[in-house]
Amino acid sequence: MSSHSSRIPPSPPPAGTAGLRADALHNRERILAAAGEAFATLGIDVPMAAIARRAGVGMATLYRRFPTRESLITEVFADQLKVCSSVVDDALADPDPWRGFRTVVEKVCAMQIADRGFTAAFLTAFPGAVDHERERVRAEHGLTELIRRAKEAGRLRADFEQADLVLLFMANGGIVAETTEDALTASRRLVAYLLRSFQADRPDHPDRSAPLPPAPPFGLRHIPHLPPVRSAG
Amino acid sequence: MSSHSSRIPPSPPPAGTAGLRADALHNRERILAAAGEAFATLGIDVPMAAIARRAGVGMATLYRRFPTRESLITEVFADQLKVCSSVVDDALADPDPWRGFRTVVEKVCAMQIADRGFTAAFLTAFPGAVDHERERVRAEHGLTELIRRAKEAGRLRADFEQADLVLLFMANGGIVAETTEDALTASRRLVAYLLRSFQADRPDHPDRSAPLPPAPPFGLRHIPHLPPVRSAG
Repeated sequence: MSSHSSRIPPSPPPAGTAGLRADALHNRERILAAAGEAFATLGIDVPMAAIARRAGVGMATLYRRFPTRESLITEVFADQLKVCSSVVDDALADPDPWRGFRTVVEKVCAMQIADRGFTAAFLTAFPGAVDHERERVRAEHGLTELIRRAKEAGRLRADFEQADLVLLFMANGGIVAETTEDALTASRRLVAYLLRSFQADRPDHPDRSAPLPPAPPFGLRHIPHLPPVRSAG
Repeated sequence: MSSHSSRIPPSPPPAGTAGLRADALHNRERILAAAGEAFATLGIDVPMAAIARRAGVGMATLYRRFPTRESLITEVFADQLKVCSSVVDDALADPDPWRGFRTVVEKVCAMQIADRGFTAAFLTAFPGAVDHERERVRAEHGLTELIRRAKEAGRLRADFEQADLVLLFMANGGIVAETTEDALTASRRLVAYLLRSFQADRPDHPDRSAPLPPAPPFGLRHIPHLPPVRSAG
């Protein structure tokens, strides 16, 4: 009931820079910048060799700094994870539960379109990336609480399930456009349509209160690694 | 206004079998069966070599029967194209325009999930495949007419655009599940949600008649080649 009861303490800031010499630190920053760009435009499955090439470092240097792909992903998305967690926290602090719910959906879908790597990293479980998994669980708990409150306020339909959020992120991930701008236009329209249908029925509107087909057995971890924005040829 | 005014005559039945010897005909059938299976499970971008291997024929035989990938796709989907065209025709013949519209959406989305290659073949323009392109244009005209009628009947919201159907097919194509059954469950739920929001508002329900964000600049040809059902890992 309290807006803080379901929170998990934020994870500690990313470490790994202590004791590095200036040139090593410089390499580390170049690798993170190159990886962030590569993940955003090509997805998180981009080959490690491509990241090394973009960063202008050798594979040995890359693997010395980041022994696994997961460690690189965790680091690159550390800041964005904080943004996403704060989106959920802000929504939990909103006195209007429906506005909180709606804002999270709108913001996360826009982030998903603008940076395809981000949502994949945020929503996929990496067994090796502990901090990352912890943020994901934190987000999942926050979303559960937002859904509960929006239902309690009578604004979200009672048969809405958490799996429906996953369905929404999958649907949003299916958008393909020639430019990110077109993809965002399409996403905003799709999200507006879906939010409209997620709203609770008014009792005087029997048409819309027809029961929905059952929800799919999806959890947040079912969100796939999304492909980059593809050309619509 | 008439249910037949916008129809284009159906395309002629696929030819290409006249004068073939029994063994050539047998090869042709094996190739079509293998290609149909490969397109459905792996998508229409599957290498021609993989189709030849599945069919147990050499590349020379494959290319003698089907000189281009487009000719193979057109032939494989000829039957399914007829099914899809008949779905649109049936809907145009339905005296209830909203039911006609809804039925097309539900059927096409289910076909899209059950056979990923099909929708891609149906909705993508192949410059070389004349019959195919003709069916696509026929479907597009039929859908335009269905939308017009459902709006005229006051059941479909006035600001619905043809691009919204494309958005729906893209969203449906974003569904990822471990099994086709789960994907169908998810698709039915997504489609139910979207149809609910496509319905025209009742004047006594001001909340939902808030204007939508603008529609994206999509035509039916913007539907991407869909990937096969991917594992949700």
